Amino acid sequence: MISEQARKVADSVSQRRLLDNLATLSRFGALANGGVNRQALSADDLDARAWLIDLARSLGCDVMTDECANLFIRRAGAQDLPPVVTGSHIDTQPDGGNLDGCYGVMAGIECVVALNEAGIVTRRPLDVVIWTNEEGSRFAPGAMGSNAFVNPAYLAEYRNNQDQNGITVGAALAECHRRFPLPRRKQYPMTAFIELHIEQGPILEQAGLSLATVQGIQGVRWYQMVCSGRSAHAGTTPMNNRADAMTLARRLTDRIENAVAGVPAEQLRLTFGSWQVMPNSINTVAGQVSFTIDFRHPDAEVLDYFDSVIAGFADQNVTVTSLLHQAPVTFDPHLLAQQQACCEALAIPTAQLVSGAFHDAMCLARHCPTSMFFVPSHKGISHNPAEYTDPHSLWLGARALACCLTELANPLTGVNL
Amino acid sequence: MISEQARKVADSVSQRRLLDNLATLSRFGALANGGVNRQALSADDLDARAWLIDLARSLGCDVMTDECANLFIRRAGAQDLPPVVTGSHIDTQPDGGNLDGCYGVMAGIECVVALNEAGIVTRRPLDVVIWTNEEGSRFAPGAMGSNAFVNPAYLAEYRNNQDQNGITVGAALAECHRRFPLPRRKQYPMTAFIELHIEQGPILEQAGLSLATVQGIQGVRWYQMVCSGRSAHAGTTPMNNRADAMTLARRLTDRIENAVAGVPAEQLRLTFGSWQVMPNSINTVAGQVSFTIDFRHPDAEVLDYFDSVIAGFADQNVTVTSLLHQAPVTFDPHLLAQQQACCEALAIPTAQLVSGAFHDAMCLARHCPTSMFFVPSHKGISHNPAEYTDPHSLWLGARALACCLTELANPLTGVNL
Repeated sequence: MISEQARKVADSVSQRRLLDNLATLSRFGALANGGVNRQALSADDLDARAWLIDLARSLGCDVMTDECANLFIRRAGAQDLPPVVTGSHIDTQPDGGNLDGCYGVMAGIECVVALNEAGIVTRRPLDVVIWTNEEGSRFAPGAMGSNAFVNPAYLAEYRNNQDQNGITVGAALAECHRRFPLPRRKQYPMTAFIELHIEQGPILEQAGLSLATVQGIQGVRWYQMVCSGRSAHAGTTPMNNRADAMTLARRLTDRIENAVAGVPAEQLRLTFGSWQVMPNSINTVAGQVSFTIDFRHPDAEVLDYFDSVIAGFADQNVTVTSLLHQAPVTFDPHLLAQQQACCEALAIPTAQLVSGAFHDAMCLARHCPTSMFFVPSHKGISHNPAEYTDPHSLWLGARALACCLTELANPLTGVNL
Repeated sequence: MISEQARKVADSVSQRRLLDNLATLSRFGALANGGVNRQALSADDLDARAWLIDLARSLGCDVMTDECANLFIRRAGAQDLPPVVTGSHIDTQPDGGNLDGCYGVMAGIECVVALNEAGIVTRRPLDVVIWTNEEGSRFAPGAMGSNAFVNPAYLAEYRNNQDQNGITVGAALAECHRRFPLPRRKQYPMTAFIELHIEQGPILEQAGLSLATVQGIQGVRWYQMVCSGRSAHAGTTPMNNRADAMTLARRLTDRIENAVAGVPAEQLRLTFGSWQVMPNSINTVAGQVSFTIDFRHPDAEVLDYFDSVIAGFADQNVTVTSLLHQAPVTFDPHLLAQQQACCEALAIPTAQLVSGAFHDAMCLARHCPTSMFFVPSHKGISHNPAEYTDPHSLWLGARALACCLTELANPLTGVNL
């Protein structure tokens, strides 16, 4: 079901080389605890970019950039057609691991090496893209580079955003461009974008599988609920005379839980993660309690139902504020079918997941046919130095990606490098 | 049922004079918002003491102090017997009102004036005491002066405690003693201590009554509960794979509530007042949640039952720490009978309450027969500039106190000043 060339490229993927390149990348911003702190457009990020640019050129690729300092590494095709694209990001959380984002970038590079080794010429170019500032931990918002690529007008808004030292996005971008005076490109059409990433959750490991095709990304609702009561002395105020804001908040969380009790547990994500209690004193009844809701689901109807449930809780003592309203993303069915075919041909048992986290692919889905692969995260841990995926799964993910990209790029038969 | 002299003293109590003296005292540390900030042993406190000392001497009283700067204002008796004692404190919360503590002190002074006006000689002396640092808002702990009087050994521990500017209790006491070089006395026996105070709760106002005899002070248990879970990504972690510390904490508060559901509501005081959530992020499942419990009840058996309930919740995910274990105080039945008789003789309808807040009387109860009177607090508000009691109730409280103190001090018949 897959071409001989695609299989040949997959077979050229080297686990050793992939791990070595990941290890080299992890040295830029390495922490003593084994983790990585490589903030977007920091000195460590620029040093890592310098290494990647040299590596790409040594593989025969052209390297370009754009206004938002996204890096475009191109393996040329036989024709100047819209490229097949993969990639992810290399910025990390402040106490992050060495796989989140980096794995997708280095697996993309490994696909280029494998194509070279296999001597395959593709009709379409293959681009490996490093998207700027996916994490959003230095500069808000996250997924800045992919968003600015898909919606170029957004960049003007981002430019004035500052990090905690007062450095603006605009200044950081200018420094990056000074160091790397690369040709600049604008938004351009893509045949497909496939992002390979770690799951950042426990499902694949628990299923005993090394790979998943990702059907889409859950929609998200963020709410802030402010419960108002009356602060009062904990000793002198009888229970029936209280307006205890914490009691109100606790009852409210129960009602929210009950309202979604019918949602199958494996699809439900409901988190009351952040709480502020006033005056937060041991012997004072709380006068005000605010808490956040993070609700995610793949189905827009369920998300809309949740919105109506939450709106129904607003009253004179409960203020409801919507902080984020993110529609679910459904990835391209043709791409997913292609991914599935490659996995079957390579005999890689594959799950079908929906992503619970955001990714650059969420932005690219508004630009071109898009989808993702996931490999397992040990114990579901991510954004943490303990982030880990077994090498065999990393290798299988890169093989599936290489196979799929090659098929999509239309390998020429009888034409070898 | 009461002596002619006691009635005469009660009838000499002046509402106008009492309110004027309270207004004068409230000028020391007055806030622009109408409240008072008079921290223990501050310049404002010392100025207020200077005024009180002058006022006491103008009434023919002797003024003494002790190591902890408690002020003892004595109206002499015909014999050198253990005195009948009243009083309270004049330090306030940082944004406090003008009645908490001050009312009991100024009502005590008004009793002295009324005794003088009525020309009554008592066999026992009458002392009005201003206890140092009841609030504990500048120096920990609260009820410092009354505790140091009853347990003189405690003062050595208190001396090194600092306010937020690094000034020690010892230094602040030394400055007070320099300004007021009064005779120092040690702990001495007392016939009785009766403290008149505002309720700081809503019960009397709701009952439409101006006065209560206070049967005792609730016992208190303070606990800190630390619930441990596992912080995780709110989007990628399925519900059945979570160890959400906030969910654990919410279930635990439900179980605690259920465990005391049988306690009559009017006697129950259960407050979850202070919460700390880690990492307290909207899109992260809480890894640790700690919350406090404030439980109060007048019955030692109920308090002990509560202790056993809480101890039963400790497990590998829940750490239980006892922060305060305060036994209930039962006030002296003979004093309470005397108070009741005075109220009936003066035709003041009187409730019987148990105090939910701490008072200096809690310490004195370990030293001599002790009890309290309460007057209403409008809307139950205290520790707040809005603290308010209607003047008529303030007057009735002072009348009842004057009657009771006179009876206890054994007024001499046929001997007038």
